[in-house]
Amino acid sequence: MGDRRAIGVFDSGMGGLTVLRALRDTLPHEDLVYLGDTARLPYGTKSADTVTAYALQATRKLLAHDVKMVVIACNTASAVAIEPLANQHAPLPVIGVVEPGARAGVAATQTNRIGVLATESTVKGGAYARAIGALAPEVSIRQQPCALFVALAEEGWGNDAIAEAAAARYLKPLFDDPDTAPDTLVLGCTHFPVLAPAIARVLGDGVTLVDSAATTAETVAAALAANDLATDDPSNGSERFLATDAPERFARVGGLFFGSEIAADAVELVDLRHG
Amino acid sequence: MGDRRAIGVFDSGMGGLTVLRALRDTLPHEDLVYLGDTARLPYGTKSADTVTAYALQATRKLLAHDVKMVVIACNTASAVAIEPLANQHAPLPVIGVVEPGARAGVAATQTNRIGVLATESTVKGGAYARAIGALAPEVSIRQQPCALFVALAEEGWGNDAIAEAAAARYLKPLFDDPDTAPDTLVLGCTHFPVLAPAIARVLGDGVTLVDSAATTAETVAAALAANDLATDDPSNGSERFLATDAPERFARVGGLFFGSEIAADAVELVDLRHG
Repeated sequence: MGDRRAIGVFDSGMGGLTVLRALRDTLPHEDLVYLGDTARLPYGTKSADTVTAYALQATRKLLAHDVKMVVIACNTASAVAIEPLANQHAPLPVIGVVEPGARAGVAATQTNRIGVLATESTVKGGAYARAIGALAPEVSIRQQPCALFVALAEEGWGNDAIAEAAAARYLKPLFDDPDTAPDTLVLGCTHFPVLAPAIARVLGDGVTLVDSAATTAETVAAALAANDLATDDPSNGSERFLATDAPERFARVGGLFFGSEIAADAVELVDLRHG
Repeated sequence: MGDRRAIGVFDSGMGGLTVLRALRDTLPHEDLVYLGDTARLPYGTKSADTVTAYALQATRKLLAHDVKMVVIACNTASAVAIEPLANQHAPLPVIGVVEPGARAGVAATQTNRIGVLATESTVKGGAYARAIGALAPEVSIRQQPCALFVALAEEGWGNDAIAEAAAARYLKPLFDDPDTAPDTLVLGCTHFPVLAPAIARVLGDGVTLVDSAATTAETVAAALAANDLATDDPSNGSERFLATDAPERFARVGGLFFGSEIAADAVELVDLRHG
């Protein structure tokens, strides 16, 4: 009969909706519950203990919606909270975005040179470098913080001339020297898939772009199958949105990441602080 | 003899350092203590009660450094917290950034049409529109949120082709119709003075740009004189920097706003939560 319970997804804000979109594309029959902790974003500047506490609260809220699996659609929380979450809620499957992106990057590179584009805090935290290094110590990794990409994506300016100019400026140091230029770029921030077409236009052919939203969705599909958790109901799955602040902005900006409109009254305001 | 005590300045982060820079230029002999609440930024998405509580904590910390005046170098906190601060700490003079910017805009316009460039939260809060309306009800006001300007300023990209392209895109709707185009633009965000040269190149002649950092510094100078609080010590004033998180980033990014280098070890980490 399959398992009709929903998949829970959380992020510090709206960027993780690129992961929700990839899940929707990959798993059209699954119900999805998305929680954006917009009242407390950004997570990237907060301590590991604080982010872990927030991630545990978010997971409890999702479990109150009877989810069968939790996806951490946030680089910061994936890097620090996946183990505590998985331990505290075993055998609930918990999937982050860092490991799938790292694995896809390692699979794609032929020159053993991977570039990682991420926020400053993700670059500093080094989660992608650690994950890639653990899978393939022979790979050399160069990281590039791309702070403006977040603002461009949130402004709805992710796919035009300004985005291309920003991408060209960020990528230049990585590709200046053909002897060290990567052949694979991992998009290590949930906001960045919105920029992928502009980045691809700047790079031209010969460089593989790894969208960690898409690779995370594939990992989720595999985990559903492995744990016998997939639904076999052939009807279309639903999406449900929870946010801890500003549902109107969540709907408006979130639509840019989700790739289709989110109605403001479809976003439920929730409080995690006493969870 | 004059009053040798320092002027205290606070902001949610580093943007207010444009105000500190204007104070340094206008008042070369005054000592300045700057507090950036980097652990809790941004303020713009938080409730008025929370921002007021944070502003009261920041003021107590500055008073522990024996300041003679407090400058709120933050649009959000200026809009909501100036009255509670002034009331609780009277007769301490408390000066915000909104009223000086509004007053300078009203003084500059000849057509009674003022544009306000600000963050989304400042635009939504409407503080500039209220302040301008109270001074000059005959002025028509058009507000334009310019979210990307914050990221451009923090990236050190505030004065080049990408900044000009962003400015052209934001300004186009304001200037499309010559019958409603403003003759005066108020920079209603402490980050935006960094963008002023790029904005001016896009606008060309005929539009006055009001930098609320500069106008706030003039207001502070007038208030020092009126309250007999100016120093008459002819030596150069000092600057002291306090931050609630990430002193290294504060120094690096803050230098872009302050206009000269800030040494990382010159930034003292402080905790406001128990203040």
